[in-house]
Amino acid sequence: MTADQPTTIPDVQASPDDRRVAIDKVGVTGVTYPMTLETPSGGKQPTVASISMYVALPHTVKGTHMSRFLEVLNEHRCQPLTPDRIPELTRTIKERLDADHAHFEASFKYFIEKKAPVTEAPGLMDYDVTFECTANAVEDFVLGVKAPATSLCPCSKEISEYGAHNQRCTIEAKVRTNTTMWIEDLVKLLEAAASHPVYAVLKRPDEKFVTEKAYENPKFVEDIVRDLALSLEDDDRIDWYSISSTNAESIHSHDAYAEITRDKRS
Amino acid sequence: MTADQPTTIPDVQASPDDRRVAIDKVGVTGVTYPMTLETPSGGKQPTVASISMYVALPHTVKGTHMSRFLEVLNEHRCQPLTPDRIPELTRTIKERLDADHAHFEASFKYFIEKKAPVTEAPGLMDYDVTFECTANAVEDFVLGVKAPATSLCPCSKEISEYGAHNQRCTIEAKVRTNTTMWIEDLVKLLEAAASHPVYAVLKRPDEKFVTEKAYENPKFVEDIVRDLALSLEDDDRIDWYSISSTNAESIHSHDAYAEITRDKRS
Amino acid sequence: MTADQPTTIPDVQASPDDRRVAIDKVGVTGVTYPMTLETPSGGKQPTVASISMYVALPHTVKGTHMSRFLEVLNEHRCQPLTPDRIPELTRTIKERLDADHAHFEASFKYFIEKKAPVTEAPGLMDYDVTFECTANAVEDFVLGVKAPATSLCPCSKEISEYGAHNQRCTIEAKVRTNTTMWIEDLVKLLEAAASHPVYAVLKRPDEKFVTEKAYENPKFVEDIVRDLALSLEDDDRIDWYSISSTNAESIHSHDAYAEITRDKRS
Amino acid sequence: MTADQPTTIPDVQASPDDRRVAIDKVGVTGVTYPMTLETPSGGKQPTVASISMYVALPHTVKGTHMSRFLEVLNEHRCQPLTPDRIPELTRTIKERLDADHAHFEASFKYFIEKKAPVTEAPGLMDYDVTFECTANAVEDFVLGVKAPATSLCPCSKEISEYGAHNQRCTIEAKVRTNTTMWIEDLVKLLEAAASHPVYAVLKRPDEKFVTEKAYENPKFVEDIVRDLALSLEDDDRIDWYSISSTNAESIHSHDAYAEITRDKRS
Repeated sequence: MTADQPTTIPDVQASPDDRRVAIDKVGVTGVTYPMTLETPSGGKQPTVASISMYVALPHTVKGTHMSRFLEVLNEHRCQPLTPDRIPELTRTIKERLDADHAHFEASFKYFIEKKAPVTEAPGLMDYDVTFECTANAVEDFVLGVKAPATSLCPCSKEISEYGAHNQRCTIEAKVRTNTTMWIEDLVKLLEAAASHPVYAVLKRPDEKFVTEKAYENPKFVEDIVRDLALSLEDDDRIDWYSISSTNAESIHSHDAYAEITRDKRS
Repeated sequence: MTADQPTTIPDVQASPDDRRVAIDKVGVTGVTYPMTLETPSGGKQPTVASISMYVALPHTVKGTHMSRFLEVLNEHRCQPLTPDRIPELTRTIKERLDADHAHFEASFKYFIEKKAPVTEAPGLMDYDVTFECTANAVEDFVLGVKAPATSLCPCSKEISEYGAHNQRCTIEAKVRTNTTMWIEDLVKLLEAAASHPVYAVLKRPDEKFVTEKAYENPKFVEDIVRDLALSLEDDDRIDWYSISSTNAESIHSHDAYAEITRDKRS
Repeated sequence: MTADQPTTIPDVQASPDDRRVAIDKVGVTGVTYPMTLETPSGGKQPTVASISMYVALPHTVKGTHMSRFLEVLNEHRCQPLTPDRIPELTRTIKERLDADHAHFEASFKYFIEKKAPVTEAPGLMDYDVTFECTANAVEDFVLGVKAPATSLCPCSKEISEYGAHNQRCTIEAKVRTNTTMWIEDLVKLLEAAASHPVYAVLKRPDEKFVTEKAYENPKFVEDIVRDLALSLEDDDRIDWYSISSTNAESIHSHDAYAEITRDKRS
Repeated sequence: MTADQPTTIPDVQASPDDRRVAIDKVGVTGVTYPMTLETPSGGKQPTVASISMYVALPHTVKGTHMSRFLEVLNEHRCQPLTPDRIPELTRTIKERLDADHAHFEASFKYFIEKKAPVTEAPGLMDYDVTFECTANAVEDFVLGVKAPATSLCPCSKEISEYGAHNQRCTIEAKVRTNTTMWIEDLVKLLEAAASHPVYAVLKRPDEKFVTEKAYENPKFVEDIVRDLALSLEDDDRIDWYSISSTNAESIHSHDAYAEITRDKRS
């Protein structure tokens, strides 16, 4: 399911279709590909992305030319990508595939240096990031970031003589913005909504600090999404957000979850 | 993050909240639970589900009472579930949690006996099924089924002297219906859209049959979703559908994908 | 890659092979299948298993007959399986496939009722269980169980003014026994090694109890595997064990892990 | 569960233990980390690894110092790693953690340029690679590579009038070598054992070529591992191998699997 060059080999994909069914999205998924990101300090960060690329197919045509998606990717390979360059890449797909709509999705790990809170021991935190872009007459871009953090239960703290159950939680935000927003900026907002951020390297004074600060700042899963919603409402760069937190409850074998989606433009 | 009985232990969740942020969905996710389904022949099929249950939380209340979700599930444990009983279960969650909206999602394996096409050797096929239900003033129910099948590439067949690349594909449909639709009914429509269904047990005469029939019926990923769309358009039980096929291309390391969503009521 | 009946269709698998390379294991993997387990109280528990079945293939034969694995499974379908019946099933595979060695592996969810520690509110806990069996001259059977639990860090407790980081951990044991051991028995030993067991349903008095008991019983990942090793050493039913704990550290984004394997017979 | 600096904060991990239970492996797992590999042409390839690091802990000591694992990783961050440098890294862990045994495991994506077989259109293939190393008195290093490929069933071809079922397979080799072996070298051996390699980009003449070549070269899962075993037996660099193939059978919903392990030194 490929191919498009000028040979005598028949082009089955290009033949007409009479079923009168347009296709919303057709393309390739599960494409593993190296990707280079630009960092706020002007540096470059290489990573590995899982990519999907689709176009809309009109009802008149039998098939799309799948190999062209990979060719567009190959052409952009050596060029560092920032969130604001993804719409251009998506538009290129739209044009090369001769389509009215194109969709681009990438998910990848992004690393940020984070010092331990007391000893300042250096550590490297990894975050799951997604870029999703649709191009038709205009482009729509959604940045998604997941940050692990710690949550400490206000009920458990309140009702217990000592201690309080706490656990790793995963806080996610997908945002539409009216200006460029760095992954680093969104991570800060996410981590600020938890009982405390987590770290790659902590020495004993740091562990004492994190344990005590989390105990002083108990949060239900509901509190995490509410506090995050408030900070995204306050941030003028953000037009739309969909946020959630999934808490791996340390007293249960299932997770607690909360979710809020708001369009500030409506 | 639990508890709701009449003790002197403070009920932190029930305390007021002044942030003025309502929560769209809050609840439990990743709950593994036994589930019994009714089959079209009146029998019962036990399975194991992964369940999520959520409610909307008004801006005035600090937290929901998570243990109640599990209690509702426990009460429904011994009762076989059919798709048409899920709305009732979701309504019970809404009432017990004293909420305006409730959401229930379950994903599980469902087994269907399928005889080999020539020898009629019996085999047991498994399908991934999802139930998704929202209850507010009315209930909205979506049935989802994924069926593995085989797809044989029309282009590869047309341009090659002999052979044609083929591969396992996964065809998925989510549907809203105006009457009860059995999982079996939807599986039949999904499998009919592929180059050929797949089987758990095939003897040699069956393997010959499936190989030849698939070769006689080549389908692009585009053809699979178009032919499935046509059959769902023709089926009066179906009001809305979202369908896709993911083909694990045997000549590539990535997958081909196509997707169509239509609301027949609009 | 199937088939074995008396037709004129050639049996390619049965043809001779002159490469002189014997195969350790050949068969089917990723077979999803319903399975019924017997419980200690004499009841039956249905579940869904992911099954692999292999045989050794001598260097003289080109291929095995894959459909026979599924046929053996179909024959055992309606019969409840206890750990002590798995060797018989594996022996049947060995005989039906005319092999010197056969291997059977199943992984599935198993449910155990567990009451909350104070209110005795009923809840249903799920555990990941594996059966692994090899049959040649004799049979070798390994039972594996994973239990989620909670672990509270002794260092964090010791060095902090208040609080202590805690988290969900997954404790796993694989054991060879000289007599039948129920899944329930192994779960008890696993949960006793943690800071505290976890539950499906906890009301407020239970949450207070679990929070305080875990705080009183801090355990490093090292302590969990050591205490579990001691209890398995003490249990005369157990001849061999391989145990581990994976702790989803609530102050880090990575996990802590410890592992011990011992053969008591050597 | 961290920390080791000279403060007045107590070092709980360093306290003595009287349970008399030594631990085989204790450390960190699920560490996501950037890694740079050297390529055969002298270039550098950045990737993202999932890393586990463990040491053996004597029965006399209560706990290990987890943060030191991450510190060793941080120190090696800017240095490109080749398979032959992993033993040195593992030895550093052993020394820094003051242990008798250390274990290092990394799994990551590795990219290799591969031209289409006829048009020579460039494409980028990704492979799953693992490094596993144990250091005690000496070091033991195992290189693992998984390559996707295509397999075409000899039985289906033989018994059918036309066509033959084929599918993506995943061929894996883990090897111990007596000299440096590049990932590229192992990939070539893996792909040569299949009915045909797969590609990231294929134009129509390439698709015709791959379809026909695979049809001319049918292979059971048994044939793939046998032919791979023969080529690894012939390669003097290889001392030990464990190989497998998993074929996603396009006529079934389960996979076919075969496995061979041989120590050429014994």
